[in-house]
Amino acid sequence: MSRPSEDALIARYFAPLATEPGADGLNDDAAVLPADKGELVVTKDMLVAGVHFLAGDAPDLVAKKALRVNLSDLAAKGARPAGFLLGLGLPPDWTEAFLADFTRGLGEDIATFDCPMFGGDTVKMPGPLTLSVTAFGRAERTVRRGGAWPGDVIVASGTIGDGALGLFARLAELGLGTAPAWLSQLGAEHRAALARRYLLPEPRTRLAAAVSAHASAAMDISDGLAGDLAKLLKASGAGGEVAADAVPLSEAARAALALSPDLIRTILTGGDDYEIVATIPRVALEKFEAEAKAAGVPVTVIGKVTPGQGLAVLDAAGTPLDLGSGRFEHF
Amino acid sequence: MSRPSEDALIARYFAPLATEPGADGLNDDAAVLPADKGELVVTKDMLVAGVHFLAGDAPDLVAKKALRVNLSDLAAKGARPAGFLLGLGLPPDWTEAFLADFTRGLGEDIATFDCPMFGGDTVKMPGPLTLSVTAFGRAERTVRRGGAWPGDVIVASGTIGDGALGLFARLAELGLGTAPAWLSQLGAEHRAALARRYLLPEPRTRLAAAVSAHASAAMDISDGLAGDLAKLLKASGAGGEVAADAVPLSEAARAALALSPDLIRTILTGGDDYEIVATIPRVALEKFEAEAKAAGVPVTVIGKVTPGQGLAVLDAAGTPLDLGSGRFEHF
Repeated sequence: MSRPSEDALIARYFAPLATEPGADGLNDDAAVLPADKGELVVTKDMLVAGVHFLAGDAPDLVAKKALRVNLSDLAAKGARPAGFLLGLGLPPDWTEAFLADFTRGLGEDIATFDCPMFGGDTVKMPGPLTLSVTAFGRAERTVRRGGAWPGDVIVASGTIGDGALGLFARLAELGLGTAPAWLSQLGAEHRAALARRYLLPEPRTRLAAAVSAHASAAMDISDGLAGDLAKLLKASGAGGEVAADAVPLSEAARAALALSPDLIRTILTGGDDYEIVATIPRVALEKFEAEAKAAGVPVTVIGKVTPGQGLAVLDAAGTPLDLGSGRFEHF
Repeated sequence: MSRPSEDALIARYFAPLATEPGADGLNDDAAVLPADKGELVVTKDMLVAGVHFLAGDAPDLVAKKALRVNLSDLAAKGARPAGFLLGLGLPPDWTEAFLADFTRGLGEDIATFDCPMFGGDTVKMPGPLTLSVTAFGRAERTVRRGGAWPGDVIVASGTIGDGALGLFARLAELGLGTAPAWLSQLGAEHRAALARRYLLPEPRTRLAAAVSAHASAAMDISDGLAGDLAKLLKASGAGGEVAADAVPLSEAARAALALSPDLIRTILTGGDDYEIVATIPRVALEKFEAEAKAAGVPVTVIGKVTPGQGLAVLDAAGTPLDLGSGRFEHF
């Protein structure tokens, strides 16, 4: 199999993506980030084939997911994208077709999110395809996990649980494992919608300015709403109550939940939402909602911050749900 | 085997390393880099077990190497360290003892190079131990590869070839492969010195200010002096001549070369030097040398930039050496 050298590979596939002056056409060992207003926010998420995405996933979607999970972190901190570096560990069987699709997808998202590539590193990986993205953002005011205050309302963007349900749908698409009964009964459109949400997160970049301006605390939901919100509350030294009925669900998730009410636990504790959970002081809620609406991002009040500690997710009768450990553990 | 959860692992081993306010005790998904004078330079190098270091290497040295190869890139651009993010892919058989040693080494180098840790990501890796470091630096003036001009002198820091020779010495220490004849004849101290240079690069951080102030072009030598210098010259649209006799060698490399004169090719084209090659306008040479001396970093004039293109490495008779392809290819 004839494949390009490292230099040729960079020149052919990556240099066209790195158009900022500070990237110097990827002809250097380092890049210069342009100066700009706001705090410089940095984040890094690694993705490994077989762990964070499936080996059968399309290369362009894998590239987009690797960038988007980082942009989701930035948005939750109130930061707009400023650029990224890509570390790429290529397994022995990589092909040019893979790289062509991968970089095409990456280029599409560079344009979509106005997030230029500044450089990176490509290495041989005697193991699974591995992506390590470091993303940079700028925030007028960086929002932390630790600023929630009793009385603040808790809001969530978009819809919750689609990623976790979508993993089941995606595994079924690939013919892996045994599909649960609810999935087999779900309409094809709903199944496809859920699988798509698992494959391709929608980082809430357009919500970043409103988060920066109004949130007392925020984080992106990557490891499940219940667990991630519990972390935020713990960092804030506060407690919280969420009404399970108030948690925003997609039509597909609503249909799945109707088929199998126990899925509420998967929805509330599953991973891969990439929505934002934020706490907003009551006096700022109206402005936050108006700015979110203007940005085209749905936001829903799901609960409130309380004194004390711990998160209670209450059912329609006001009884706390038992959610088990409440978060996805990476180890 | 009982091992800590991801949260416990971060709290126990990594949070103590992240003492900057912007790191927020690693309790968040992103960090805020402090504002400072100078351009913000960013670089990213991935290291994979079995590719960039050996499985038998001590964890503390692996951690240091991963940070140091990035600091070497920064120094060559004229940038002082400002901080880093660590991506860590842990293979299934990781142990707490490994992490304890790894983070101890990392902590030592954080102090040595005054380079704080701002965050990162730890993931499961169904493959070899993988490290992805993104390092940040500040430069009054960032030095690129493309600024060399005919008439500039070419300088190299430290000594060249020890890393490439050291890989042989290190493989012999581990009982891997067949030791070449010259290695068997070399004294034990020289063998140990070479192996050490392979294991633990010395980034030329203290030379960064002089590079920033005086170099017309610079890069760090990671893939061999001849090939890396050829890249610098090509980016500058210039040619160059280097006198092989002028290339600075350690005592150990000198002894090895005396045993096997052909090693000059390994010395000039082998990887893992992590020295700096720079071009200096003649009028600035005296100042550059004085500042390098004050910084305690040896620098040696090895040649000059010429009109035209290509790099010629000349032997004592002035005849160009045939160095083959002249650089280490990653693929």
